[in-house]
Amino acid sequence: MSTTGNSTNLGCFYGVGVGPGDPELLTLKALRILQDVPVICTPRSETSQESYALDIVREYLDEQKQEIIRIPFPIDDEAGAAAVWRNAADTIGGHLTQGKDVAFITEGDPMLYSTFSYVLDSITSGYPEVTVEIIPGVSSVMAAAASAGVPLVTHGQRLVILPAVYGIDDLSEAIANYDTIVLMKVNRTLLQALANLEQLGLAGKGIYVRRASTAREEVVRDLSTLSEEDLDYFSLLIIKR
Amino acid sequence: MSTTGNSTNLGCFYGVGVGPGDPELLTLKALRILQDVPVICTPRSETSQESYALDIVREYLDEQKQEIIRIPFPIDDEAGAAAVWRNAADTIGGHLTQGKDVAFITEGDPMLYSTFSYVLDSITSGYPEVTVEIIPGVSSVMAAAASAGVPLVTHGQRLVILPAVYGIDDLSEAIANYDTIVLMKVNRTLLQALANLEQLGLAGKGIYVRRASTAREEVVRDLSTLSEEDLDYFSLLIIKR
Repeated sequence: MSTTGNSTNLGCFYGVGVGPGDPELLTLKALRILQDVPVICTPRSETSQESYALDIVREYLDEQKQEIIRIPFPIDDEAGAAAVWRNAADTIGGHLTQGKDVAFITEGDPMLYSTFSYVLDSITSGYPEVTVEIIPGVSSVMAAAASAGVPLVTHGQRLVILPAVYGIDDLSEAIANYDTIVLMKVNRTLLQALANLEQLGLAGKGIYVRRASTAREEVVRDLSTLSEEDLDYFSLLIIKR
Repeated sequence: MSTTGNSTNLGCFYGVGVGPGDPELLTLKALRILQDVPVICTPRSETSQESYALDIVREYLDEQKQEIIRIPFPIDDEAGAAAVWRNAADTIGGHLTQGKDVAFITEGDPMLYSTFSYVLDSITSGYPEVTVEIIPGVSSVMAAAASAGVPLVTHGQRLVILPAVYGIDDLSEAIANYDTIVLMKVNRTLLQALANLEQLGLAGKGIYVRRASTAREEVVRDLSTLSEEDLDYFSLLIIKR
């Protein structure tokens, strides 16, 4: 997306996907923009000072010259979430109206389960004249498949990506109609997901991938070895019929 | 995937996703490997000398020093397809057994509707001792969403990726159970897909994106303007309920 507004006075707002974790999986374009902009904006959870996206790109930044803004984001769809995104947009908008380009970084891709979509919404409604450019990134879905050595889908096949297991009926429906199912961020629902797979006769069909492309990456093909200790926010399950 | 075999004598086989079309959407890792390997392998359709993946990375290669192998691939799941992939594996295997690293390039990501999966299969069965490394890439799905400025899915939503429209019943099922549907490579089925959308009351819900991230990119939000002339192999439809 590139909505060209009054770009002579306003900074450009970039949404930059920084990939699944390995800093080398940044795109050339993402790197160029991140080294060029004066302001980097990164989401962090309200309970932590950490930002995973920032960890990925930190080595490429010049923290002496570039300003880094950490924006706390609500963990779930909370009642106050809309206000959080409006505040975020105002913080970012302040820099943009000073003529500074701002890059909002997200792990993976900005358009797939990213906090960027909420910020984008707030910026485009609050600052409609701002130029927005979105730089797609390598998703953890693709990185996990690469790490597992398992093609997600080939010619003629159908893929479903679910944010979590909603229940065995949902999974059963997906299995019936699609070739491959990816369950994202199974951290809180891992054990339930595994129980459901077993109940559906799919016990041997799942592959668990944690922190794909990083030094802490783990690919687990025998799901019976998984326990609550294996919970991890950056994990997913690939299920092939 | 990184299966470590007898890597002292054998070359490494890389599957490299080169992204959706913009050469700047290559990852740093893909660039490093492509500039490092002595042999680049690229698929081309049997009816053409062109290779889209090669066009994307050509500016980064040194064709004086690097060998480029074009492997013809079957357009569909034809009867002779298996033999084609075995031949491809033998050509690649010849270089690997000489100790040369080979990078097989594919547009987008190697694990999502890529010819790489067939070659991977042939290599791992024919040359089980070879080390394989897969470098994920930016998919055209993400690039199209970025170009359209439309998030694919946000918190709690469900995504389906279909290789084509199989019929109105399939689309109807997907629409009923999922928030976003991406129809890949609608080149041959575009008009049927549009008719189906209209019949399902989704006429205003689709966005057509052609050649995302390239100079020839086109984002069409009024699907009624599309005709057979807009057919393009590198196109997709994003449908949001």
